[in-house]
Amino acid sequence: MISVVAWAQQKTIQERLGYPKDTKLLIVHADDLGVSHSENVASIYAMEKGVVSSASIMVPCPWFSEIAAYAKANPNTDLGLHMTLNSEWKSYKWRPVAPHDEVSSLLDEYGYLNETVEAFLKNAKLEEVEKELRSQIERAKQFGVDPTHLDAHMGAAFSTAKFLEVLIKLGHEYKIPVLISKDFSRALNIDYTAFVTDKDVIVDRVIIASGRDYHAGMESFYTQQLQALQPGLTVLLLHAAYDNDEMKAITVDHVDYGASWRQQDFNFFTSDKCKKLIADEKIKLVTWKEIRDKIVRK
Amino acid sequence: MISVVAWAQQKTIQERLGYPKDTKLLIVHADDLGVSHSENVASIYAMEKGVVSSASIMVPCPWFSEIAAYAKANPNTDLGLHMTLNSEWKSYKWRPVAPHDEVSSLLDEYGYLNETVEAFLKNAKLEEVEKELRSQIERAKQFGVDPTHLDAHMGAAFSTAKFLEVLIKLGHEYKIPVLISKDFSRALNIDYTAFVTDKDVIVDRVIIASGRDYHAGMESFYTQQLQALQPGLTVLLLHAAYDNDEMKAITVDHVDYGASWRQQDFNFFTSDKCKKLIADEKIKLVTWKEIRDKIVRK
Repeated sequence: MISVVAWAQQKTIQERLGYPKDTKLLIVHADDLGVSHSENVASIYAMEKGVVSSASIMVPCPWFSEIAAYAKANPNTDLGLHMTLNSEWKSYKWRPVAPHDEVSSLLDEYGYLNETVEAFLKNAKLEEVEKELRSQIERAKQFGVDPTHLDAHMGAAFSTAKFLEVLIKLGHEYKIPVLISKDFSRALNIDYTAFVTDKDVIVDRVIIASGRDYHAGMESFYTQQLQALQPGLTVLLLHAAYDNDEMKAITVDHVDYGASWRQQDFNFFTSDKCKKLIADEKIKLVTWKEIRDKIVRK
Repeated sequence: MISVVAWAQQKTIQERLGYPKDTKLLIVHADDLGVSHSENVASIYAMEKGVVSSASIMVPCPWFSEIAAYAKANPNTDLGLHMTLNSEWKSYKWRPVAPHDEVSSLLDEYGYLNETVEAFLKNAKLEEVEKELRSQIERAKQFGVDPTHLDAHMGAAFSTAKFLEVLIKLGHEYKIPVLISKDFSRALNIDYTAFVTDKDVIVDRVIIASGRDYHAGMESFYTQQLQALQPGLTVLLLHAAYDNDEMKAITVDHVDYGASWRQQDFNFFTSDKCKKLIADEKIKLVTWKEIRDKIVRK
């Protein structure tokens, strides 16, 4: 006799969601909502008019109020939380949601969240990570947002087994699916099997462009990825924003994920070419909300 | 025999600064630096190329790091602190510099600084106001900013005798001049005479456009004000930013001080017409730095 967990995980996610088992399921996911007005409006456009099926919000960021108001007014839009433990830009910063002195191990010398994941890992105390993540969920709920999923900005909250365990625990508590990825776990050598239940969903593959892909051309990279998509559940992570003054200034002096990168992501995932490709390749776009409501909150 | 204070205040500010006593001294002052990238770059341009002689920075705001880096790299630029006790915009918010739970009387239900001065006045505890103002000064110093003056965003820190007393006390402690205005004090019925010393400077007049002036036309308003300028020390407060997507989104749904208003301020104070008017009217532009170094730190 196999355990319930093993049974749930043996059935493919396609079957658990009610699709034929060889369906190519894809979540086209925009990260970083709330970081700027440019990111908010471009991402909303890419969801309303393009093929972006899901996105996640950074609660500590200055433009959180704007996207939270949108989420509250559009409860069918698939918006989760991009759990944020870093403030990575040079000229534009944010502070944690929890009281500073209760999460001081997460802060730099100026009281902002740390710039890098390395700095985060060096000092972060587990209980303070949990406190800040919980504060972000509670703050979102206070603004009328019912998050469809939880993921991790810059991967910080995924970066060790202990942090991932806390994130999954919060997901169970609030009945919100967490992006648990075979790829990430393999890359980081994290064994998540002890933390998951039959209510969790393990993503088969995560696709995200690298700096090399950006320099070789985003359209070419995404086209190849969509053409090569395999059955199972894939999450494609992108960052949509307009290449305008605000976004150029935010991303100044950073090598990757700049304003032009985000504009190219926006361009591709709002293009007719991308829509046709998804239809031609018989890719089924799904949302975290569908996963949440059919599996986690069933 | 008169007291030292009375003697200092009897001499005109022109004489104390070494100018003939009937000189028309003017500080053309941009408020709100740090609030946005748009405000930062427009204000810097208006100082470098236009007639803006002074400006002040909002330390709790998201773009503080950008303007602080500029201030550090340009120590001769006249940059003070726009002491900030409110976060007034609808979709774009900031938190205090001091730990939340030590200044909780200054916060709204979401942990942001209050939206209105009325809400601030309703709950603010004096010792928490002092703590937040001190934290803002210390944070600026930590970033390498040596403030030339202190003033008050939305007038909150000027709004009662007790708060003004705290601000003046901090000015004395850090040897930074505070904008003490006969006009403000009269309007608010605040008697500052017990708080000031011979190191303080009392501004004769403060000019700031109202909503009515904006609707009647900024160029007309500022032209009249400059043509009617009287001898003494006048401070003209303006808000320079570009009327771009970022600034439009920040100021959304607000009646006054919108993106177009700020663009018009920028346009006038970078215009040749304004420069010629200042020359024709024999107006002497001065800075808070000059006041600080000749009087407060003498």
